[in-house]
Amino acid sequence: MPEFFNVLPPDDAFESLRERLTARVQAEAVPVSEALGRVTACEIVSAEDLPSFPRSTMDGYSVRAADTFGATESLPAYLELAGEVPMGQPPAVSLRPGQAARAFTGGMLAEGADAVVMEENTQRAGETTLEALRPVAPGENVLQVGEDVRSGEVVLPSGHLVRPQDVGALTALGITQVQAARRPVVSIVSTGDELVAPGETPGPGRVRDVNSYTISALVEKHGGIPIPLPLVKDDYDAQRDAALRGIEQADVLVFSAGSSISSRDLTASVLDGLGSPGVIVHGVSLKPGKPTIVALVDGKPAFGLPGNPVSAMVVFDLLVRPTLCLLRGLDPPPRPAAVSARLTRDVASAAGREDHVQVRLDGVRGGVPTAHPVFGKSNLIYSLVRADGTVRIPPDRTGLYAGQDVEVRLF
Amino acid sequence: MPEFFNVLPPDDAFESLRERLTARVQAEAVPVSEALGRVTACEIVSAEDLPSFPRSTMDGYSVRAADTFGATESLPAYLELAGEVPMGQPPAVSLRPGQAARAFTGGMLAEGADAVVMEENTQRAGETTLEALRPVAPGENVLQVGEDVRSGEVVLPSGHLVRPQDVGALTALGITQVQAARRPVVSIVSTGDELVAPGETPGPGRVRDVNSYTISALVEKHGGIPIPLPLVKDDYDAQRDAALRGIEQADVLVFSAGSSISSRDLTASVLDGLGSPGVIVHGVSLKPGKPTIVALVDGKPAFGLPGNPVSAMVVFDLLVRPTLCLLRGLDPPPRPAAVSARLTRDVASAAGREDHVQVRLDGVRGGVPTAHPVFGKSNLIYSLVRADGTVRIPPDRTGLYAGQDVEVRLF
Repeated sequence: MPEFFNVLPPDDAFESLRERLTARVQAEAVPVSEALGRVTACEIVSAEDLPSFPRSTMDGYSVRAADTFGATESLPAYLELAGEVPMGQPPAVSLRPGQAARAFTGGMLAEGADAVVMEENTQRAGETTLEALRPVAPGENVLQVGEDVRSGEVVLPSGHLVRPQDVGALTALGITQVQAARRPVVSIVSTGDELVAPGETPGPGRVRDVNSYTISALVEKHGGIPIPLPLVKDDYDAQRDAALRGIEQADVLVFSAGSSISSRDLTASVLDGLGSPGVIVHGVSLKPGKPTIVALVDGKPAFGLPGNPVSAMVVFDLLVRPTLCLLRGLDPPPRPAAVSARLTRDVASAAGREDHVQVRLDGVRGGVPTAHPVFGKSNLIYSLVRADGTVRIPPDRTGLYAGQDVEVRLF
Repeated sequence: MPEFFNVLPPDDAFESLRERLTARVQAEAVPVSEALGRVTACEIVSAEDLPSFPRSTMDGYSVRAADTFGATESLPAYLELAGEVPMGQPPAVSLRPGQAARAFTGGMLAEGADAVVMEENTQRAGETTLEALRPVAPGENVLQVGEDVRSGEVVLPSGHLVRPQDVGALTALGITQVQAARRPVVSIVSTGDELVAPGETPGPGRVRDVNSYTISALVEKHGGIPIPLPLVKDDYDAQRDAALRGIEQADVLVFSAGSSISSRDLTASVLDGLGSPGVIVHGVSLKPGKPTIVALVDGKPAFGLPGNPVSAMVVFDLLVRPTLCLLRGLDPPPRPAAVSARLTRDVASAAGREDHVQVRLDGVRGGVPTAHPVFGKSNLIYSLVRADGTVRIPPDRTGLYAGQDVEVRLF
C-alpha cells in the first residue's frame, strides 16, 4: 500500500465509513444530575401530567369566571373574600357563587374556581369585599393540568444531547436516572522514532510528543474517554502490538502516524492488517490532511491521522469527531460551532481539493468580526494556538477574496 | 424592599456588578493533561526554541543550496549521495560541496546542509548519484530554529481558556503543569413552600424542584462547581441561615426565589442583609426575568433568580454566566455561542424592555436555518426543552418580523 492513488473528498471519506459503521456504544444508567453532555439511549416518556393540578400563573384571586363577566373599573364585580390558598397546600376553601380566594403564582386555586384575576385588576373594598375591575375568561391566568407535558408524551427522543434545561425538565417529572450512551473509549497511539514524552528533554533530532495530548483533549471535548498509550517506534511489530492492544480495550483507535512517507506507509500496513475489512480510505483530497487513513477493524473504526499537528486537528474535526457522535447515537452528527466573519486577505487554493485555512478572529467591522488568515506550515503547532478556527475552501474554488464573508469553524 | 421601582437594562445590571466586583478565584497548579477548559492564571512563557534544531519539512535530500543553483530538468545538478539522517537521530553525515544526504519530514539535515530538495524534484542516476531537477534557496523546505516559538516568548496570555491545541502546544515545550484559576464554587438554594425533591411524589399543591438542577448543570457547563443545598421554605430565618451557609463555602450564591411576589420580596430582604453593600440591582427591564436581584456580600456576588425556570435560565445566561467568567479571569467574558437564522413568524414586544424569545431551529431555507418562535408561559419548563435558543429583541423595538434575520443564542 504505497502512495495515495485514490484519494476521496473528506465528506465522501466520512460517508464511506458511515455506511459501513453499525457499531454503537452500549447504554448505561446515569443519574440525571450527572447527565449533562450525555446522549439519551432511548426515548424518555412522561409518566404523569405536568402540572399535575391547575396552577395560578399570577398573584391575585381565584374566582368563578362567570362572576366577573361585564366587570369594568366604573362598574366592578363585587366578590366576597372567602379566604386564601397558601403556597404548597391544597385548598381549604370552596367557592360559592360570588366568592373569591387569594391565590399565589404557582399555587392552587380554591375549590370551584376556574380562573384567576390579577391583583393589579382588583381593589379591596372593606375587610371581606373585593372589587374585580376587569372580567376574566374561564381558564385565564391558570396553567391547566398537562399543559406543559401530558402523561405518555415523549419528552426527549433517543439520541438527544442532554442540556442544562433537559436536566431540570426531567427532574420536574421525577425522573432521576436515564439510559445514556456510554462515553466511547478511544485508544490513542503516537508513533515515530523521533518522539519523546513531554517530561523529557529531547536529544538531537528528537521532539516531544504533541498529538497524544491534543487528540486526548479533543476526545474529551467531544464526549469520549481518551486512553493515551505509550509512544511506539516506526517498527511494524511494535506498532501492530500497540494497535491490537489499543483496539481491544477501546471503541475507536486513533494512530498518529510519523510524518515521513515511509512512516505513514507503515501505519497504513499496520491498520490494514488488524481485522476485517481493513483500510477503507487511503488518502483524502484535503489540505492539510491528505495522508489520512480510515480502517474498520471487525466493526471498530481506526484512524491513521497525519503526524503534523495542524493536519491531525483538521482531520479529527472532519472524520473522528462525527464518528464519535455516531457511536454515541448522535445521528446526524451536529455541525461544529461556527461564526460568520469577513476575510481580511486573499487566500489561494488548488482546485480539486478542499483547503482548510486557519484564521484568527479580530475586531468587528461593519457588524461582522474580521478573519485574518494565519499562514504557517502545517507542522507549526503554535499556528493552531494563534488561530481561532478554520475556513473551508471548497474543491471547485481556487481561493477566497479579501472582503468575502466566510464561515469560521471554531476550535 | 417592595416592588421593583428602579429596574435596570440587563447590560447595565451586569455593569453595575462588574464595576464593584474585584474578587477573582485563586490559582492552582493543574497538570496540562487536565487543563482543558480551564483558564490560565498567569502568562505562560517558553523556556526554549521550537523547533530546537533545523527540521526538514519534506521527504527528500538535504543539500548545500548553492550546489543546486541553475538546476533544471534538462540540465540537472549532479550531487553525490553521502548517506542519510534517520528520523530521531543526529546527523552522522557531513556534506562536502556537491554532496547530498537523504532527509525525512521532521528529521534533521546533514551537517553543512542549508536546504532540502523535495524527493519529487530529484532523480536517481546510479547508486550514489542524484540529479536535482530544480534549484532550492537557502532555508527552503526547512523549519528554522525558533520558527514556531522563540525562547522567552509568551505562548499563552493570562486569562486564556485552554483548548485542545493549547494542551498539545504546551507539551511540545515540555510544560506539563500550568497555573489555572480554581473552578468557582457556586452554592445553589431553591426556595419555596411548594417545592419537594425530585425523588418525591408531590402532594396537592406541591411541585418538584427544577431550578437547583438546571442551575447546577449551567454552573457545570460554564466551568464552575455547583453545590446544591437543601430546599428552603419561605421563611426569613431559614433562608438567611441557608444563605449564610451557602455564601461561606462558595464564591457565588445563587438563590432561586419562589414565584409569588411575597416570596420574591423575602429573597430580596435575605440577600440584602447578608453583608456589605447588599442588594445593588433590584429588578431588570427584561422579559422573562424582571424580578431579578443582584447583591454583593462582602465582595462575593449573590443572585436572586426568578422562580420560573425560563426566567431563571435567561437571567443565568445574561448575569451569572459572565460573572463566572470574570471570577475565572476571562475578561471580557466571551459571547455565548450563536447562529444566524431567519424568523418564521412576527414576534411582538413591549418597548422599554429587552425581550428574549425562545426559538426552535429548523430546516435551512435560502442558505439560512429557520427560527420558529416557541410561545409559552415562562413557567413551562418544557418550552425550554422544545427550544434551541433565544432571540433578543432590543428595548427600542416593538417586535421582530417574519423573514427577518436574527441571531439565535444557543442554549
